Amino acid sequence: MADSVTPLRADRPGPDEGVAVLDRLEAVCNTHDAPELAEVLRALSAFMLEDLVQVEADIERVPRRDEVIGKSAHHLLALKGKRLRPMCVALAAKAGRGFDDSARALAAAVELVHSATLLHDDVVDHGTMRRGEPTARTLYGNAASVFAGDWLLIEALRRVRQADVPRVLDDLLDIIDEMIRAEAVQLENRGRLVVDRQTYFAIIEGKTASLFRWGLRSGARAGRLDDEDAEALATYGQNLGIAFQIVDDALDFMGEAEETGKNLFADLREGKVTYPVLVGMERDPALKAALGDALASPKGLSNAEGQRVLTALRKTGAIDASMALAREYSEAAAKAIERLPSGAAKTALTLVADASARRRA
Amino acid sequence: MADSVTPLRADRPGPDEGVAVLDRLEAVCNTHDAPELAEVLRALSAFMLEDLVQVEADIERVPRRDEVIGKSAHHLLALKGKRLRPMCVALAAKAGRGFDDSARALAAAVELVHSATLLHDDVVDHGTMRRGEPTARTLYGNAASVFAGDWLLIEALRRVRQADVPRVLDDLLDIIDEMIRAEAVQLENRGRLVVDRQTYFAIIEGKTASLFRWGLRSGARAGRLDDEDAEALATYGQNLGIAFQIVDDALDFMGEAEETGKNLFADLREGKVTYPVLVGMERDPALKAALGDALASPKGLSNAEGQRVLTALRKTGAIDASMALAREYSEAAAKAIERLPSGAAKTALTLVADASARRRA
Repeated sequence: MADSVTPLRADRPGPDEGVAVLDRLEAVCNTHDAPELAEVLRALSAFMLEDLVQVEADIERVPRRDEVIGKSAHHLLALKGKRLRPMCVALAAKAGRGFDDSARALAAAVELVHSATLLHDDVVDHGTMRRGEPTARTLYGNAASVFAGDWLLIEALRRVRQADVPRVLDDLLDIIDEMIRAEAVQLENRGRLVVDRQTYFAIIEGKTASLFRWGLRSGARAGRLDDEDAEALATYGQNLGIAFQIVDDALDFMGEAEETGKNLFADLREGKVTYPVLVGMERDPALKAALGDALASPKGLSNAEGQRVLTALRKTGAIDASMALAREYSEAAAKAIERLPSGAAKTALTLVADASARRRA
Repeated sequence: MADSVTPLRADRPGPDEGVAVLDRLEAVCNTHDAPELAEVLRALSAFMLEDLVQVEADIERVPRRDEVIGKSAHHLLALKGKRLRPMCVALAAKAGRGFDDSARALAAAVELVHSATLLHDDVVDHGTMRRGEPTARTLYGNAASVFAGDWLLIEALRRVRQADVPRVLDDLLDIIDEMIRAEAVQLENRGRLVVDRQTYFAIIEGKTASLFRWGLRSGARAGRLDDEDAEALATYGQNLGIAFQIVDDALDFMGEAEETGKNLFADLREGKVTYPVLVGMERDPALKAALGDALASPKGLSNAEGQRVLTALRKTGAIDASMALAREYSEAAAKAIERLPSGAAKTALTLVADASARRRA
């Protein structure tokens, strides 16, 4: 029972959930090279805590169903990611008139859409692990994950209907269409070694940045910001999403070598060329040839080959280049919202952008 | 260029498409034992022709995309089923103020939702053939069908938004939830020999009847019928959907024996016990034991065993009993709309119900 936790009303989840949300916020800011950021954001968390606890409660309101589809959906929801998307919706709303019931419904919706896409992605990519746990499909089967994804999408759309904020539903349908088109680009590139930046950005803008853009714009609309401010926040979201994805890509190369080599090869097979690989191949033609050979071979990369590829990739400086590019996007995000009036929400958004580009987990 | 075809405006599809729609309407009425029905409905088709051509054009408006997801979606749409669901939406609207742009959007939407579920079902059930053609997933892969289903669902929801008819979007979200819950019941019964009617009806009401119910109620609302008439049409839809599904189940046992045996076994494995099997097992315990053994065996049914099971099933009279039950539901459908004022739409709906329960294809 931490005294530091903002008092919660009786009908809300108890302090333990509050602490869990706090931990999550800290995780976003868990930056090895900039501990002061984590410090600042920890101070800010009081400002967000009750909102995030409410979002969590709203997500928990997805009905429990004791069958494989229900279990698949709740397995994923219980893994609890960073909840960065709902946090962004909340902050955008707070930059306006505040985080009310409508904004909360939208914050839950953005996480549910994200969760729906993860369920379908894991089926499509034959994913076995997610957030350190077995994927829902390995526990309950592909069929259940397909329908669980459908279900969470419907649950998300219901929240958006409840929110009753002008334009956000039509926007979301457009965004999901965009996400599917990005999946199409990725599917088309399966088994091929994509080396152009245009394709890479088409995929990450469609798959990742678009939903961030929607979340920020929708939070702004729920907070009754005017169209210019809403667009500023949408631009923030777009840039934050790109930064976030590039860091995700780079972090894949910072782990243990054997695991990293295996994941790299699995990604290549699925048509997922990540930014560090793109840069590495541009800088080192031998690396490109080695990856091409591995992709053409039915055996794939051996552990030793994987390690050699990783060493070569690191030597090109591609990972540092990726982190540097992510910082550029996070700076563009921060710049996009300069026009917003000063306040805690703006400060928090700026810090979230900075932390997202510097995170190491 | 058949003279009998209603003249089409220049911006509409040409007479060939008109004839295709006509054929489809006839197919619904293609009843071996009641040729007069086909005759009557053929006369009625002039009354529907332009509406159905418009719906077809509206479905065709789903953007063409030259990648596997787009191809998967259009492969399924091009197979052209009976379009019974859009026809029902059109007739419900015509029972009111007529088939306008809103009703047309809803008619296209109901077919798109249906198509989305078929794409996901084929992935989940490992379906290889649909409407006499290879399934989209066998041509373009499971991944493309998962996302194509997602896409058509989004396209459907967009049409519902365009239609802008009160309550129909929230209703549709509830209906899709109902469909997913029925899938859950089916998944839970995979590999088990379901023998209770409650489970059977829970599945077909959720998977089939619910969307018919939505189509009829929504068409009625687009046609500005009052709530009582809309509910009458919803009840019609519910009963028609059940009748339609039971006939579908029964028709599975009227084909060539070897194929039928194979499909029967595949269905059992997927947890799909159909009504004739349910009745057959109730009436003949030996049949139940044989199916149980087949399901428990890794080899499944041999051709000879399949034939024996079919013969035993036919001997119980289960297929006739199924057709008789379907007729009861189609009569309940017709009865539900007795309260509607007389007119061509009501006559057509009554005939569609009758033809759906008597069809042999």
